[in-house]
Amino acid sequence: MPDFAPLPALPYFAVIFTAQRAEGDHGYTAMADRMSDMALSSPGCLGMESTRHAGGFGITVSYWRDEASILAWKADAQHLVAQQLGQDRWYTHYNLRVALVERHYSGPEGRAPVRD
Amino acid sequence: MPDFAPLPALPYFAVIFTAQRAEGDHGYTAMADRMSDMALSSPGCLGMESTRHAGGFGITVSYWRDEASILAWKADAQHLVAQQLGQDRWYTHYNLRVALVERHYSGPEGRAPVRD
Repeated sequence: MPDFAPLPALPYFAVIFTAQRAEGDHGYTAMADRMSDMALSSPGCLGMESTRHAGGFGITVSYWRDEASILAWKADAQHLVAQQLGQDRWYTHYNLRVALVERHYSGPEGRAPVRD
Repeated sequence: MPDFAPLPALPYFAVIFTAQRAEGDHGYTAMADRMSDMALSSPGCLGMESTRHAGGFGITVSYWRDEASILAWKADAQHLVAQQLGQDRWYTHYNLRVALVERHYSGPEGRAPVRD
């Protein structure tokens, strides 16, 4: 997965997931890779950006066409298993926010934030 | 700065900044620390969550009460200097998205994503 997601047509949704990993892998890495691939091929998914520092605090933002596509991915059977394992084993804490993206730009070659 | 931001009263805004750092520090670390402190003490700022992996890809999400507080921080004189340095030196690429947070939850002790 490339680090950056494209900027699709506005408006669209962002699901902001911030999470602290617990100690140990416990099957996390393999499942996370699989869930990323599945989410990205899920209808209405527009991309994903994700990073984590060595201390285990990570942020994953996935982008979606509409609420229906978010809810469909959330209800996916294999994703439900992963969500339960996330609660039971992988994360000591997480926040999840669903937000409507109203504007966006990229840089440095794009619109300059200092001039708008 | 703690890793997690609180979940404030809905709705509120999220500014999602994803960026790839260029090689070398060039004053980045000191300025980033200063900008985080300044943003967090800026009127209307509700919190911030930020992480970056060793390869230099980072995500910072800041949360704001309203559009006016986002625009006021964006126009801050010292922040304008930092934005220009970000374009000129620190980032090879970035995406910035402004989004309205419509719902949120936290876990594992909070609302269980598998059951809603």
